[in-house]
Amino acid sequence: MAFAQVTKPVSIVDVSPRDGLQNEKTPVSTEDKVRLIEELIRMGAQRIEAVSFVNPKAVPQMADADAVMAAVPRTDAVSYIGLVLNTRGALRAVDAGVDEMNYVLPVTDAFAAANQNTTVAAALTALEEVSDIAASASIPLSVTAAVAFGCPYQGDVPIEQTLEVVRSAMGRADLAEVALADTIGCAVPWQVGEAFARLREETGLQLRAHLHETRHTALANTYAAMASGVDVFDSSVGGLGGCPFAPGAAGNISTEDLAWMLGRAGFHTGIDVQKATELGRWICGLVGTKPRSGLAGAGVFPAAA
Amino acid sequence: MAFAQVTKPVSIVDVSPRDGLQNEKTPVSTEDKVRLIEELIRMGAQRIEAVSFVNPKAVPQMADADAVMAAVPRTDAVSYIGLVLNTRGALRAVDAGVDEMNYVLPVTDAFAAANQNTTVAAALTALEEVSDIAASASIPLSVTAAVAFGCPYQGDVPIEQTLEVVRSAMGRADLAEVALADTIGCAVPWQVGEAFARLREETGLQLRAHLHETRHTALANTYAAMASGVDVFDSSVGGLGGCPFAPGAAGNISTEDLAWMLGRAGFHTGIDVQKATELGRWICGLVGTKPRSGLAGAGVFPAAA
Repeated sequence: MAFAQVTKPVSIVDVSPRDGLQNEKTPVSTEDKVRLIEELIRMGAQRIEAVSFVNPKAVPQMADADAVMAAVPRTDAVSYIGLVLNTRGALRAVDAGVDEMNYVLPVTDAFAAANQNTTVAAALTALEEVSDIAASASIPLSVTAAVAFGCPYQGDVPIEQTLEVVRSAMGRADLAEVALADTIGCAVPWQVGEAFARLREETGLQLRAHLHETRHTALANTYAAMASGVDVFDSSVGGLGGCPFAPGAAGNISTEDLAWMLGRAGFHTGIDVQKATELGRWICGLVGTKPRSGLAGAGVFPAAA
Repeated sequence: MAFAQVTKPVSIVDVSPRDGLQNEKTPVSTEDKVRLIEELIRMGAQRIEAVSFVNPKAVPQMADADAVMAAVPRTDAVSYIGLVLNTRGALRAVDAGVDEMNYVLPVTDAFAAANQNTTVAAALTALEEVSDIAASASIPLSVTAAVAFGCPYQGDVPIEQTLEVVRSAMGRADLAEVALADTIGCAVPWQVGEAFARLREETGLQLRAHLHETRHTALANTYAAMASGVDVFDSSVGGLGGCPFAPGAAGNISTEDLAWMLGRAGFHTGIDVQKATELGRWICGLVGTKPRSGLAGAGVFPAAA
């Protein structure tokens, strides 16, 4: 049964191995991270945010990023994204052979200080250098604008503040994609729709949404973003995830709920919803949390699907 | 901060005392039910689905409906809705002095059999009699079309099937309002938007949405329903609720998440979000469950609000 007027494909970037795991205190072995990535590929993921190249003292779970990248299966069917916060991370990402680089750009100075000990202005300057590093290695670069819809420190973030930072980024770097992130899950759909619609007016770049389920608005924000021309979404199996420097941040939107909603409406994601639910159960069990998806509790509908 | 283009008021019908409690095995005393209703009024609720007049053997939690209605404060500021399934319930509702009557009309024979031991055709016939009873007592009557977006027994429910049943109801009864219910939380926003848009084309009646959070689509469905002209929504504090005859039905959309999302976008609901969150904690604690709202875990955003 398809309800959507337009049944174009929608792309899901599975961020379970990075955003999903980074905040979990239970150490996950390199072997299990690689197994997770292999299972995500079997689930149908074609883009995977596999690792971040950040300070291991700040985010111990990502200390083995280089080892993970050395062990994952290489195939044309999947693109591995490495997240970076600075030039040092970008150089490590090149050495590790990522397929894509994603740079996190906070839109508030308060979050920039807490998350990566910098300022928005300094982060924009660093982005120029990161862009050069990525370009030299012919690695496509995307930017994720963090706390784009609200900041745990600043509070409300006006849409114009977010757009101004994104405009600066687009002016300074050679970008393949721009994402707006609802890092702490405080966005509402009218806000998300307006922000992406304005961004769409200003650029032909591919847009991506990174949404969290903290206040249960993630699927509403997905729907609003799609109406504003977004067709790439981050998610994690089981809704795993959070941000160590964003108080109150609950999990990412779950891959299974997202893919189920889209599939039921008639959009093609290529994701096996049942497998996503099972994988969410497995990885959440491994780190000692409960899967936060609706599907983990209620199952798919209709049951035969 | 207001993001919505139109900042008209949105009406929330709090169904905590009825849909919220009916499925809970822990008996709640008449006194506590009345206290819940009094607190809902302090929270800002102006319409409350207070009780159902149903077979006490089938739904023991509602056995004291008459006593609850005899004890609640009567004021022009609040309208009490009594839910009925048949003429017997309608007569009890009149005796109890409800301000509004809500008739549950299944749109599938399979759910009609399981939920209220009837058929769609027989339920439509009974609606005529219920309408006469309500009209004689000058009590406004609304209809809630159950399993309007999917049925635990039939599976998918085509939009046309739901609309056909609703059309029959409008032709046979004098209705003040029609609701479509996502009884088991299987609806997706494209579906909800299309169903309400088609219903809006056919009638000038007030429309209401009854949404469940089972698969995390309730706020997405709210957003889509609003875009199709719906401005009345059912919810329960703490997301309490379910349906004893609808396997897999999780809670209602929570009053606090709904009112927070709407308020943050610029819509006026009159609901005190903080008070709704606290009330959800209290009533969930009383029946031994955990509040299922996002706000119960993460709090409002911005924090000062």
